[in-house]
Amino acid sequence: MRRKLTRSGLTGLLVTHLADVRYLCGFTGSNAALAITRHCARLFTDGRYRAQAAEEVKAAEAEIVSRGAAVSAVEWLAAQHGVEAAGFDPSHATVADLDRWRNALPARLRRTFFAPLPAPLVEPLRVVKSDMELAILREAAQIGCNLFDHMLGFLRPGLREYEVAGELEHAARLAGAEGMSFETIVASGVRSALPHGRATDARLPRRGFLTLDFGIIHKGYCSDMTRTVHFGTPRPRERVAYEAVLEAQQAAVAAVAAGVRCGEVDEAARSVLRHAGLADAFSHSTGHGVGLEIHEPPRIGAGQKDRLEAGMVVTIEPGIYLPGEFGIRIEDMVAVTRTGGEILTPAPKALIEL
Amino acid sequence: MRRKLTRSGLTGLLVTHLADVRYLCGFTGSNAALAITRHCARLFTDGRYRAQAAEEVKAAEAEIVSRGAAVSAVEWLAAQHGVEAAGFDPSHATVADLDRWRNALPARLRRTFFAPLPAPLVEPLRVVKSDMELAILREAAQIGCNLFDHMLGFLRPGLREYEVAGELEHAARLAGAEGMSFETIVASGVRSALPHGRATDARLPRRGFLTLDFGIIHKGYCSDMTRTVHFGTPRPRERVAYEAVLEAQQAAVAAVAAGVRCGEVDEAARSVLRHAGLADAFSHSTGHGVGLEIHEPPRIGAGQKDRLEAGMVVTIEPGIYLPGEFGIRIEDMVAVTRTGGEILTPAPKALIEL
Repeated sequence: MRRKLTRSGLTGLLVTHLADVRYLCGFTGSNAALAITRHCARLFTDGRYRAQAAEEVKAAEAEIVSRGAAVSAVEWLAAQHGVEAAGFDPSHATVADLDRWRNALPARLRRTFFAPLPAPLVEPLRVVKSDMELAILREAAQIGCNLFDHMLGFLRPGLREYEVAGELEHAARLAGAEGMSFETIVASGVRSALPHGRATDARLPRRGFLTLDFGIIHKGYCSDMTRTVHFGTPRPRERVAYEAVLEAQQAAVAAVAAGVRCGEVDEAARSVLRHAGLADAFSHSTGHGVGLEIHEPPRIGAGQKDRLEAGMVVTIEPGIYLPGEFGIRIEDMVAVTRTGGEILTPAPKALIEL
Repeated sequence: MRRKLTRSGLTGLLVTHLADVRYLCGFTGSNAALAITRHCARLFTDGRYRAQAAEEVKAAEAEIVSRGAAVSAVEWLAAQHGVEAAGFDPSHATVADLDRWRNALPARLRRTFFAPLPAPLVEPLRVVKSDMELAILREAAQIGCNLFDHMLGFLRPGLREYEVAGELEHAARLAGAEGMSFETIVASGVRSALPHGRATDARLPRRGFLTLDFGIIHKGYCSDMTRTVHFGTPRPRERVAYEAVLEAQQAAVAAVAAGVRCGEVDEAARSVLRHAGLADAFSHSTGHGVGLEIHEPPRIGAGQKDRLEAGMVVTIEPGIYLPGEFGIRIEDMVAVTRTGGEILTPAPKALIEL
């Protein structure tokens, strides 16, 4: 990071986004700011985290402050020899934050000190995962698959969607998950046509689809997977649609490799659904990066020019949504390798009839 | 709100904080911006929410847009006759947001159009609850109490903290909660001395305290309560400390009434703990408002000059934390009335020995 700082021409950097703070120095507390110069780095947090900071923080000194962590970081940066300006991420600083930070500076520095970064500096480091991060993400994804397997033994018509979410989340806790990585999606029957159907008191149908989209947090990292199963025997039209989504998903997974443009991966899925006459029913992009946050770059969407790099972990999740009828989505986590993609979520994808 | 806008001298307002949007027009989707003029209001969201917006939105027109909701709201505001400037909440707009919004304006308006509000406009409306909101918060708090009662039958030494959190969250789902209002705190034994101890794999002790701090979401509103129970027979020092926290909590509840300064309520709790020699062990403030968000104004902290108003709902949650030994916190939700406070969380507070 410090090399990158130097190359960017900056003399200081203020990092307040907690996922970035954790990535750079290991600190997992809920209140922190990291100040970085070309020569050193210092983490600021409050008294609740004294023991935790001493234990977790690497590559930076930790300082416990009673005032705001970010304001303390600003004051420290401004007092460092050779620091004339500090970059910050404008996507993770509110207008009120910036105002507060400026007011913590000596008057002569107020107008010139803060430089909104034209592009994120930390995020590009985070999107390419280290071997240790890949190992954690593989574990997280496997916990998700085990949970899906558990749910196959639990699901039956007549259960309410929230009972399904409750069972899944309870099993996740018992499997040691630190939490869910996003609000569990349980969408059954006609509700499967909602891309983001939260669990309601609707009952699972005797006949129809059920979409489960969920993720857990494991050692700070997020998993994310979706499977759509069917209660009873699918109608021909439903079966054809499922096979089209599965083929689209597999085509996109097969398109993953270092050097490939994200838009090409999206197009691999989209063209299958276009040929199946379902282009309009695929109303979102194909996937996104995943790591310390559930949504990270890159975005796997139509026309995206960014290229995949080895070590990225992305979701591949095409879906179709036919309002008033049904919806289907299938999602894996895929690690990008030099020559292709490694599926981290090995749960079966062939249509399951319950 | 429009009256307030007129009084503030503004001709337009951009509301992007989702809790504010929900409060003002009822829309509960995850992507929205509300534009308000002195004469009308319009909600902007995306195609996923077409049906939901038509059903939920009151007192505003709803418009489905394919571009960003906030940018669309900005363009609409700038095109309204008589709107020369738009207020926005600088605590809920990032520096990058503001930049995007400005770029959506005609060049002649860019420098002057946006006015950061010197104080929030919507929040002061939200902190005083209507009768309907009070009824929902009462229900939410009661669901929390029922869950605590359920947990008393579940808790036993040897359980892991995450099993406790899992049971609680599962029971919450089955009780119809929409979710938890914050990460469940389960802190047992020496870990009870951590004010915000997340559930770990630590086992509940044969002898020692257990602090449960949790909340659910019901019809969009948050509950929040804490109880500390004891496994085995408490030592005299532990019993004395518990009684001191309970007395402090009751003193603060008794101090609640419309017109009282928040700092006086805090002082009611703090002085009890000071007399018990535990002033330093009470390391946080006494409480906070609660509603659509888990933390809302007012803050019930030392020296706070703001006065309580009838209809506010606040937590009263003094605690003590003795590192390496134990911790105790007791928390109720209290609705402020003209003459006092109504406890919304009637679960017992006398020391429970399990």
